[in-house]
Formats: sequence, structure tokens, C-alpha cells
Amino acid sequence: MQRKIEGLQKVLRERRLDALMIENPIDLFYLTGLNLSKGYLVVKSSGATLFVDSRYIEMARNISPLPVELNEKKSFMKDLSGAVGFDSSFMTYEEYSALEKGFPDVRFTAAPAPLKEMRVVKTPDERAALKRAALLTYEGLLHIKGLLQEGISEEELAFAFEWFCRKKGASSLSFDPIIAFGSNSAYPHHRAGKTLLQKGQVVLMDVGAVVDSYHGDLTRIAFFGEADPKLVHFLHVVRRAQQKAMEAVRPGVFVGRLDEIVRHEFRLEGVEELFTHSLGHGIGLETHEYPRIRFDGEDAPLLLAPGMVFTLEAGLYQSPLGGIRYEDMIVVTENGYENLCGHAEF
Amino acid sequence: MQRKIEGLQKVLRERRLDALMIENPIDLFYLTGLNLSKGYLVVKSSGATLFVDSRYIEMARNISPLPVELNEKKSFMKDLSGAVGFDSSFMTYEEYSALEKGFPDVRFTAAPAPLKEMRVVKTPDERAALKRAALLTYEGLLHIKGLLQEGISEEELAFAFEWFCRKKGASSLSFDPIIAFGSNSAYPHHRAGKTLLQKGQVVLMDVGAVVDSYHGDLTRIAFFGEADPKLVHFLHVVRRAQQKAMEAVRPGVFVGRLDEIVRHEFRLEGVEELFTHSLGHGIGLETHEYPRIRFDGEDAPLLLAPGMVFTLEAGLYQSPLGGIRYEDMIVVTENGYENLCGHAEF
Repeated sequence: MQRKIEGLQKVLRERRLDALMIENPIDLFYLTGLNLSKGYLVVKSSGATLFVDSRYIEMARNISPLPVELNEKKSFMKDLSGAVGFDSSFMTYEEYSALEKGFPDVRFTAAPAPLKEMRVVKTPDERAALKRAALLTYEGLLHIKGLLQEGISEEELAFAFEWFCRKKGASSLSFDPIIAFGSNSAYPHHRAGKTLLQKGQVVLMDVGAVVDSYHGDLTRIAFFGEADPKLVHFLHVVRRAQQKAMEAVRPGVFVGRLDEIVRHEFRLEGVEELFTHSLGHGIGLETHEYPRIRFDGEDAPLLLAPGMVFTLEAGLYQSPLGGIRYEDMIVVTENGYENLCGHAEF
Repeated sequence: MQRKIEGLQKVLRERRLDALMIENPIDLFYLTGLNLSKGYLVVKSSGATLFVDSRYIEMARNISPLPVELNEKKSFMKDLSGAVGFDSSFMTYEEYSALEKGFPDVRFTAAPAPLKEMRVVKTPDERAALKRAALLTYEGLLHIKGLLQEGISEEELAFAFEWFCRKKGASSLSFDPIIAFGSNSAYPHHRAGKTLLQKGQVVLMDVGAVVDSYHGDLTRIAFFGEADPKLVHFLHVVRRAQQKAMEAVRPGVFVGRLDEIVRHEFRLEGVEELFTHSLGHGIGLETHEYPRIRFDGEDAPLLLAPGMVFTLEAGLYQSPLGGIRYEDMIVVTENGYENLCGHAEF
């Protein structure tokens, strides 16, 4: 908690704010451990106060690590003056507009995603939860790999994955499972549908379990029956490229560099144009967090630091043949990386 | 589709706009049937065009009932001029700000929730889907009522409800089930937790299944073992009040009137202050839609019209004794109402 309070006060100083309002429920959970659909944390240099409505007041008073007050008729705004930061990446125009009209003496100042820098480096507790999420997701992948048989549908496998993980303690899934048979795998954003498995098809499984609020996200490939030689070749190329990027992970490396390494490998094979998405993304309380790992993205200049957790997901897609993707969750350590699921044999 | 296009053009005229941008994914699904995490529908008097990014372009071209174009570098803004409406209840301040800077010649005009009036009256297809959702939710309630036994946990019942509904075709749940034993039922926003069922406890079950994208939402009460006489009395009062409100439902009645009827009944019993929330809410593609059914809310002056679907959920809460709530889904017919789950014996 102390580290988080200090982080908030650093945001105040850096953005030259007299106060900062935090209202994204995921940020509120990160700071207080409370599941609120609505609430405001008001941060000043003197301290932080959580404002919630009558639905949450009793629970919040019982378990919030920060002082709690009842929010009635925008009472979270009381005593605020000067430059007040708001999360412009979360607040709607309508809400902003009502505040601006209601409090003409306050200078409302856009402070988009104020917890971005704080949340990108995970605490030891967060890393432990992400490891549990990665390991359960991997277990679930092994489980559904064991269910592959002619005529099973993508949807049935998706449901079996969810059921397995929830029985083992997942609160939910990170996202609707992507289970893609045959040519469906050529679409990175395919969802599990009614397609039935046939001999000779590739099976792409991109899934994640949520454990203790932290998200898992892994992709694995299986060949059912005789594999197409070109897809087998793609899998070798993808895994080699992903492995090279992984081995480059250590503090001080630019985020964009990892994507460059993968694209360089693909270029040597003449398949660069078949890699149609970013190499990965930060992961934590959300499946997709800062940074986006891409050579030409706005996060490319970010330097890796110990405790950052992200996915590395290299892929090659050729319609109607099919697609290959291989994805792990990586934590940056003091002098390198750790693969959170720890399994590369499948 | 024709009715929806006409509805959009009515919005243009009423709000005196040259064009309207729709970007709320639920509105986009309502208009096009496409599940998009991101997209823009641009409506002009001459017609409407859907803009999506490369992830969705192929799917959208295949199944969109409206013309589709690729959105690259804000190309949805091309050819727009004059007063352009945006959904200020959805668009973030950051996105608004970027558009305003990027297109200084356009007059961006707040048009909050532009589909609110259109979506409040459900089509026959929507009503049929809501009825399927209500009936499956009721079946699920009967199922978990049959599982009540000493020592079962709230969480186990919640999971059993979800499992039952999903096996029977629900795509997901409308919300995390509220299963509350004993004194937990005194908190309207309690979630299913680790509490174990004991003899003599009241069981409050507020649950919903999503069927064909439409949300169910029902609440029922069971007494496990000998019931507390005061809670039994509360249940009679709640059901009588809810029934009176239901019987008042017909076209032309003010939304707020329904809540007044319930509060009047409670006042006669001297328990009005134990009813701590609104009487209900519109329901459809979302669990909570326009209007909010409350005597003093901003939607109180809305007149009921055939095809509107909403919940009626009267409740009385007294901590630590417990709480009672009874909730149905109601559709307004030409001369009265229909209870969508059609079951009042439990």
C-alpha cells in the first residue's frame, strides 16, 4: 500500500495537480482491493479518500485500507480547488461536461490513465497471482488437448476449458476462448463456433483463466491427424522467433526491440507479411494492459524493467490454409526473464 | 431494419444534426447484428455506413445489413461537416478532444444515448428473445431451489444456476448471481459468497440468463426450514405491492406511477423506509436499460407504450433480520401487460 500511495503522489507532482480523481473501477480495485462498479478516489498531497454511494458504504468502511466517505450529490468534489486531474481515457464527455458546469472554479485537467506507469510493474503478490493464472491456463490447455477427437466442436472445447478452470478455482475466463480448427485459425480474432474437428486439421487454442483477479493468456497449437507440412514449418519458425524475442528480455531493453527481433526472423524466411498483429501486450488485472509490444507503436520506446509482465505471441496466418500462433506470459527479472507457465514442450 | 433506419433519421431531425456517429458496441449490435469491440456507424439523411478496422472488415462485409467501409486513421470522419452528433454518454473526453483537434471545421455536438428512445420499445423478435431469457431464468431458479440443503454455499448455488442455464443454451449470465442466505439478504447488492445454508434461513435468489443476446432478471425467495414470521409477512406485503403495480401496467401510464403504487402499499404497512431502491428498470441487450422506474427519478414522466419491457422488483430490507425481494419481467401490451416468465406460484 505504501508503494501505491507514493506512486499516486508522484503522479500529482509530475502532472502538477492539486488533486487527482480516480474513477476507473479497475484502478480502484488495484488501490483498495474493493470491487466497486462506481466510486471516486480523491488524491491530494495530504492523503487519499475513497467516496462511494450508499450501496457500497458499509462494505467499503469495513475493508478499505483508505478512509471512506459517502458520495452524495457529487460530494467527492467538496474541498477541491485549483488543478484537478481526471482520467480522460475513462471519463465520458458527458460526465466531464457536468463537472465543468457544476464547479466553474476548478481547473479540470486531463490526466489520461494516471496509474499506467504504476500498474506496469507488478508487485511480488501480483506476479504470484499471474503465475497461478498462467499455470492453471496451461493445465486447462492440456485438458482440452486430451479431448481432441473427430467431430468435437470448437464450442465444446471452449466450454470444457472454462468448466475445467472454474472447477479448479478460476473466477472467470480472461476472454471468450479462441478455439479455431483448420482454416478458421487463419483469422486471429476467430471465436469458438460450431465447426467440427476433422482429421488433418490444425487446432489453435488461445485461452486464459482469471485467478485471484489476475488474467492468464496463452496460445498453443495441436495437429489432429496428419499435419500439413507448411503449417509444421510455420510452427517451427514461429516458435524460434518467439524464443529469440524471449531470450532478449532483460531490464533496459526497448519494448519495440522484441517485436523487431521477431519480424527480422520472419523476414529471413520471407513470411513477414503473414504476421498481422502486435507481438504482445502487458497483462495483469486486465488481459490487455500497457504496453503494447510493437516496433512502431507509441509504447515502443518504453524500457523493460524488473517486474513487468507481458505476453509474447508470434503468429503467421495464411488463408485458407490456416494460422499458427504461440503465446507465453513473461515476467522481466533482475537479469533476464521467467516464462510464467514454465512449459514449452507443448 | 427499416424501422431502425427511420428511427435514426428521426434522431437526426430532432437533434438538428447533419450527421450522427454511433460507437457504443451495444448500439452497433442492435443496429447491425455484429459483435464489434470497436466501430463507428455514421448516419446521414442519405443513409448509414459502418466503419470497422481490419480485424472485423471481412466479417462485417459478409453479414452487415448496412454498407461497410474500412476505418483507417479516422476515415469514418471523411466527408463529414456541419453539426456532427456524438454519443457523449459513451465517448471519453480523450477521444472527443482528439476529434475536436483533428477536425476543427466540424461542430461536434453532444447527443447522449441517441438510441435510448428507439431501444426502449422492443420489436416482436426482441420480446420473444426476452421471453426465452425469462423462462430459462425461471427454470434455473426452480433447479437451484431443488438443491437447497443444509451446508450448501451461496457460491455453489450460483455456480449450479450458471451451469444449468448454459447447458440449456444461455451464452452467459446477465450478472453475477445474487444468492443471499439469512442476514446477507438484507443487503440488496450482496453477491454469492462462502456462507453456508442453515435451517431457518431465508434464501434470496436474484439471477438472470442471457439467451440470444437478451438478458433475463428475476428474483425469488425460499424459506429453508421454519420461516421467520416477520419475513413471511414481508413476503406477503412485497408480493401484494408488486402485484398491484403490475396490474397498473398499460399504455399511457407514467413510469413513476408504478413506483408510487408500491410505496403507497408499503406506507400503509408502515414499512416504506425499508424499500431502499428503485422499483425496476428497462431490460433488453443490457440488464439495466432506460427507463429507471422510480417516482422521483428523471424517467418518471415517461409514458408506458406497447412493447416496453422492464422489471418490477419490490423489496423490504431489515438488517440483521434479512430481506425480501420479488422480481418479474413485464412487457407492456396493447391494453395491459404480460408477465414474461408467466409463473407466480414461486
